[in-house]
Amino acid sequence: MTDNYDRTRSDSIVLSEEIRLFESSPGDEDTPLHGTGQYEDFHTIDWQRDIARDRMRHRNVMKKRGDGIWNLLCGIQDAWSGWLCVLLVGIAAGSIAAVIDIGAAWMKDLREGICPQAFWLNREHCCWANEASFEGVPCNQWYNWPEVFGSNLSSDSYGFSVLQCLFYVFWSVAFAGIAAMLVHTFAPYACGSGIPEIKTILSGFIIRGYLGKWTLIIKSVGLVLAVSAGLSLGKEGPLVHVACCIGNILAYAFPKYGRNEAKKREILSAASAAGVSVAFGAPIGGVLFSLEEVSYYFPLKTLWRSFFCALVAASVLRSINPFGNDHLVMFYVKYTTPWAFFEVVPFLLLGVMGGVLATIFIQCNLRWCRFRKTSQLGQYPIIEVVVIALVTALLSYPNEFTRMNTSDLIKVLFSQCGIGDVSPLCDYKRNFTNVNTPIERAEAGPLVYESMWRLGAALVFKMLITIFTFGIKIPAGIFIPSLAFGAITGRIVGVAMEQIVFYNPNFWLFHTACSTGEQCITPGLYAMVGAAACLGGVTRMTVSLVVIMFELTGSVNYIVPLMTSIMAAKWVADALGKEGIYDAHINLNGYPFLDVKEEFEHTTIAQDAMQPRRGENKLTCITQDGTTVQEIEELLRTTGHNGFPVVVSDDNPCLVGFVLRRDLNIALATLSTQDGVTSGSRVLFTSVAPVPWSGPPPLKLTRILDLAPVTVTDHTPMETVIDMFRKLGLRQTLVTRNGKILGIITKKDVLRHIKLLANQDPESVLFN
Amino acid sequence: MTDNYDRTRSDSIVLSEEIRLFESSPGDEDTPLHGTGQYEDFHTIDWQRDIARDRMRHRNVMKKRGDGIWNLLCGIQDAWSGWLCVLLVGIAAGSIAAVIDIGAAWMKDLREGICPQAFWLNREHCCWANEASFEGVPCNQWYNWPEVFGSNLSSDSYGFSVLQCLFYVFWSVAFAGIAAMLVHTFAPYACGSGIPEIKTILSGFIIRGYLGKWTLIIKSVGLVLAVSAGLSLGKEGPLVHVACCIGNILAYAFPKYGRNEAKKREILSAASAAGVSVAFGAPIGGVLFSLEEVSYYFPLKTLWRSFFCALVAASVLRSINPFGNDHLVMFYVKYTTPWAFFEVVPFLLLGVMGGVLATIFIQCNLRWCRFRKTSQLGQYPIIEVVVIALVTALLSYPNEFTRMNTSDLIKVLFSQCGIGDVSPLCDYKRNFTNVNTPIERAEAGPLVYESMWRLGAALVFKMLITIFTFGIKIPAGIFIPSLAFGAITGRIVGVAMEQIVFYNPNFWLFHTACSTGEQCITPGLYAMVGAAACLGGVTRMTVSLVVIMFELTGSVNYIVPLMTSIMAAKWVADALGKEGIYDAHINLNGYPFLDVKEEFEHTTIAQDAMQPRRGENKLTCITQDGTTVQEIEELLRTTGHNGFPVVVSDDNPCLVGFVLRRDLNIALATLSTQDGVTSGSRVLFTSVAPVPWSGPPPLKLTRILDLAPVTVTDHTPMETVIDMFRKLGLRQTLVTRNGKILGIITKKDVLRHIKLLANQDPESVLFN
Repeated sequence: MTDNYDRTRSDSIVLSEEIRLFESSPGDEDTPLHGTGQYEDFHTIDWQRDIARDRMRHRNVMKKRGDGIWNLLCGIQDAWSGWLCVLLVGIAAGSIAAVIDIGAAWMKDLREGICPQAFWLNREHCCWANEASFEGVPCNQWYNWPEVFGSNLSSDSYGFSVLQCLFYVFWSVAFAGIAAMLVHTFAPYACGSGIPEIKTILSGFIIRGYLGKWTLIIKSVGLVLAVSAGLSLGKEGPLVHVACCIGNILAYAFPKYGRNEAKKREILSAASAAGVSVAFGAPIGGVLFSLEEVSYYFPLKTLWRSFFCALVAASVLRSINPFGNDHLVMFYVKYTTPWAFFEVVPFLLLGVMGGVLATIFIQCNLRWCRFRKTSQLGQYPIIEVVVIALVTALLSYPNEFTRMNTSDLIKVLFSQCGIGDVSPLCDYKRNFTNVNTPIERAEAGPLVYESMWRLGAALVFKMLITIFTFGIKIPAGIFIPSLAFGAITGRIVGVAMEQIVFYNPNFWLFHTACSTGEQCITPGLYAMVGAAACLGGVTRMTVSLVVIMFELTGSVNYIVPLMTSIMAAKWVADALGKEGIYDAHINLNGYPFLDVKEEFEHTTIAQDAMQPRRGENKLTCITQDGTTVQEIEELLRTTGHNGFPVVVSDDNPCLVGFVLRRDLNIALATLSTQDGVTSGSRVLFTSVAPVPWSGPPPLKLTRILDLAPVTVTDHTPMETVIDMFRKLGLRQTLVTRNGKILGIITKKDVLRHIKLLANQDPESVLFN
Repeated sequence: MTDNYDRTRSDSIVLSEEIRLFESSPGDEDTPLHGTGQYEDFHTIDWQRDIARDRMRHRNVMKKRGDGIWNLLCGIQDAWSGWLCVLLVGIAAGSIAAVIDIGAAWMKDLREGICPQAFWLNREHCCWANEASFEGVPCNQWYNWPEVFGSNLSSDSYGFSVLQCLFYVFWSVAFAGIAAMLVHTFAPYACGSGIPEIKTILSGFIIRGYLGKWTLIIKSVGLVLAVSAGLSLGKEGPLVHVACCIGNILAYAFPKYGRNEAKKREILSAASAAGVSVAFGAPIGGVLFSLEEVSYYFPLKTLWRSFFCALVAASVLRSINPFGNDHLVMFYVKYTTPWAFFEVVPFLLLGVMGGVLATIFIQCNLRWCRFRKTSQLGQYPIIEVVVIALVTALLSYPNEFTRMNTSDLIKVLFSQCGIGDVSPLCDYKRNFTNVNTPIERAEAGPLVYESMWRLGAALVFKMLITIFTFGIKIPAGIFIPSLAFGAITGRIVGVAMEQIVFYNPNFWLFHTACSTGEQCITPGLYAMVGAAACLGGVTRMTVSLVVIMFELTGSVNYIVPLMTSIMAAKWVADALGKEGIYDAHINLNGYPFLDVKEEFEHTTIAQDAMQPRRGENKLTCITQDGTTVQEIEELLRTTGHNGFPVVVSDDNPCLVGFVLRRDLNIALATLSTQDGVTSGSRVLFTSVAPVPWSGPPPLKLTRILDLAPVTVTDHTPMETVIDMFRKLGLRQTLVTRNGKILGIITKKDVLRHIKLLANQDPESVLFN
């Protein structure tokens, strides 16, 4: 029992270091002899082990560095491979985003017509290429579909419109159907937003193929089709998934990252930052999004690399310039009027409305998704997509605000009415004399009021259709629809405020800020604030959202309005329903995600969560020198555990170490053919053989024994245990009392325990 | 030996939760009966324990919430106290920063003269208040000192200048001397930048009084004096210290934070963000600075609160508007020319130069500080300050670039030469016809060349004097001097580039971007990029610096140039010398700071770092039922350990738990007077008394025993142990083998081990 206790310690640190380096000779680490570090599908990774493996690899590279030019080059390549990898990821992400942008811009016009002289041009470029034409003025080179097919109806007639509408609906349904079929046939993982899954993967879970090349290709193509089909979805969320696929694929070119799941997640964090960066042209927002929302284990040293990746991606996208304008930002706005302090009240109101709208949306969407999962509906994904595309196209065509592309709608809503603005939203009774004179306060004309009704209808329609759209089997993001809900609400509130101020300019609250005759309320700003609030309510993003919004709009001056409304939206949404859309979908799908932000409020201790539970059999253990090969084979056959604790003896279950099932299997397969080892041979996990010795020669498996398993005592509060799981990235921990093994807690046990205490079904967690 | 092993487990989770709630009755937690949670000076805090205490407190508040209105209000107050506290911190930080700004602006002009009609006005406001006067034109209301004292020399004469210079030097020395005396007499902790100490405190260390009210007052006053004295230092770094003092003081108004060191650090993180926010008018940069540079343990949920705090502080400062301009930003710039791609080469060059300058500065400063510590110089801090102030004032007076305030210098260097600019830096041979016409390329005039020499001299002088200044016993920040070094270098390089392009406009590299006759190089941008590079090299900030720079200058378009040079500067500086200035000063002062960013590269294991070391006596343990009161008292007297492991018995040293020295002391003092307890009584740490029993009644100390100490096995790699210390915020961990106690590793042991492996003196760590 004291066999190991008094083993002489190594003479000095240096000596012991040498010994250990010798014990773990380089060959063992370079070639994955035991197949270690590989995980099976739907398994959790062991961060500590992976990081230890990486450091060992790093040390070997460093040691060899002196031996010749080749090894030196290898060392340099190793040191730079992280930067090189994120550089490539950035370039690829920027390029693919540009291709998707260009493709979507072309195909969304294809629903209405074509440029016969150069079919690869969209409407805008077709008209540009052939003649200088102002926006809104139809150009001669662009043919609507009825014109292409030689319709003899004039383009003003009712029949022409019906025909045009039919073409529009046909193309929408066709695009959506093709996208659904592609996803269904080639890459089922390409559907949805992908962010819930990426959060789960980054938290240390394996989903094979989720970030593979087929997913990348189908998601990119499907995204173009889905956006062009005019469905109520965005391409911003899925771009994060696309960028992560790129990160994953490119990581395989660098063994340091490709062969090590923990290290690979550093690249994936950077890739997700690049995804947001190209989606919104917001590199800093992307990094903060990756930090706040997506990443789980974010070492600060990767912050800088993520920023680099995001910036490269944004620069590449900008240099390709798919939108044909020089602004990196997506919804560039420039308001001439600063905001006044009293406007904090409507901004707060917008925040509350955003929170309420977001909660309604999340709850309805969740119910529908749950219904889809449990009913027969889930078996007909393609039909569902086609039906939704049909309904969307038919209902969105009549209202100009729903017919236009959602991001164009947001751009219109964000903008300020300027000189020469012919949009119905800008039908004010005022005269512009000069570009430089300040805009005067003005009464809204009839078209503005009409637009308000249309906007209201658009909001209801978009909310309803998005509830059914988010979750269907095509690539679909939620950023742009959420922004649209909020922008519509905000614009309506903004116009209302504007008219209130117009009719009551001397009310004490308005008097100070609006004492001159100039316009002091900018409805576009309200749209921006409302959009941020709604997106904040849906995703529960905070700082990253503020940063994305101001990078998106290019205006640094509106941090206070944005922050006020986002904070209000988050508080209201948190009070009404606990989870954001991504966390809700993680739960719905039962992904094993241990949230870093949630606090564990209960007073349970490790004993309450561990296996075996009360009344169950004792934990299956292996003794360090008393188990035979046959017994271990029997154990592997009869139990499904991923690993077994090794104890001193059955009478004295003091914990010696932990051995993985996988390693045991491999070791038995390779080593049991050694000289004299029979099924009756004892398996030794200690270097000291017990005396007296009898029977066939033993099988020594000391090498596969993990002598440093993480342990907790049975009285450790579960909050500490959960903290250890989160921060150290554990796969399991052993529970001891007075040094003796009592049980084991795996990540699955932790998640089941949390679900149990929250009165949810603990069996809903998807796991191995 | 199996006494505890088969103790019946509680019947169900719910039952066991009730039992535990009962065991730890509310009274125990609300009143710090044992004096737990209090730490002594220069001790490390135990995060896990503090956080557990806070959760228990939170649960009690939640439970009581239903019992009456008062408790409900308490509950609501508790939930909001974090937000309320950071709100107050933000308001206070913004106000104090405004007071400091106004004070410094007034006093720095006081060195040259006074406004007799209204002595509280600085030169600018004095002239404003009395007559409309253009910049540069002397105004009649402002009297230089020789004039005040009725000098009969005319203001153009040589004698007048000498007199003026003497007054200038006199005031500088007086201000610096007063600041040094204040610091020396009232608050020795108020000296320096404070950031190294704040990093250490946030990493979980106690330095009593470092964030106290005297430090706050003296640091604020001393800062105004030091800046006004014209010393080569900035007020930005110390503002972080000031904000943290405010955070610490206000935290005491909220027992949730004031009484819990771990929770208090959440407020301090937010306060440090507010400090940077008011220093630079950069709320987002402040949060990132707090995250990247200062904070150690930054839960994501405090990110949002920190942002709120930073924003409130910036808004308050802005509404007070101490600079009298409406820009929140400090060095507002607006360049008319975009940067061209070929400029990446000079930007990289600036990065390299920044890195080299920063390394030279850090190394020289460190050597001087080390000399000060070891020589007699350290005993005369006030004389040192006075001498440096005298030298600075005398040498800086002749050169206009060193005579002006450093932040004014940076502003001048950042700016672009526009129409009507009379500065010698803008002496170009060109004619401006109109504000709106683009600036043409032009030859530099003689004044520009002369300015270059003066700037070069200013750079050398500033570098030298700052090496001696940073570290003297007055409040002194390094941000502004570093920015100045870089801005000077950048401006020189920028003018050189400009002239190269002017003389070689058709060189292939320049041809594309500079094909028209317009100016295509903006020397001000080079100054900005150079300043960022130099600051990056000195502090090794990355993302936060990019964000601060673009918030500081209000221009989002220069992220790529900034990032290029900052990255180059960081790489060069990292290659030349490992540490940034803050980490170097942490090391110099021996603060016990376990860096989160550094990787542990060695292969040592827990056994190598633990106490007792080889050849030393066995670890002092207490047995769970075999030690008498007398023996424990003896143990407390003869050893200095902060805690003792409790084991089953001397023969079977299986670990039961851990008991703190402090708790043992308190328990013995209060409980040994109980009935029948004598010095021969056995102390019981188990609820099961050993049979047979003899002797006086035992003293039961089960309550003070920590049954859940964190343990590692002797084979655990040190990298994992260090990871646990960092991420879980441990104070110590126990080392076991096969469940038996072998030794203990404290944070001090870890730091000593790291120093030992880095061939440094392990005894230099300041610690208890």
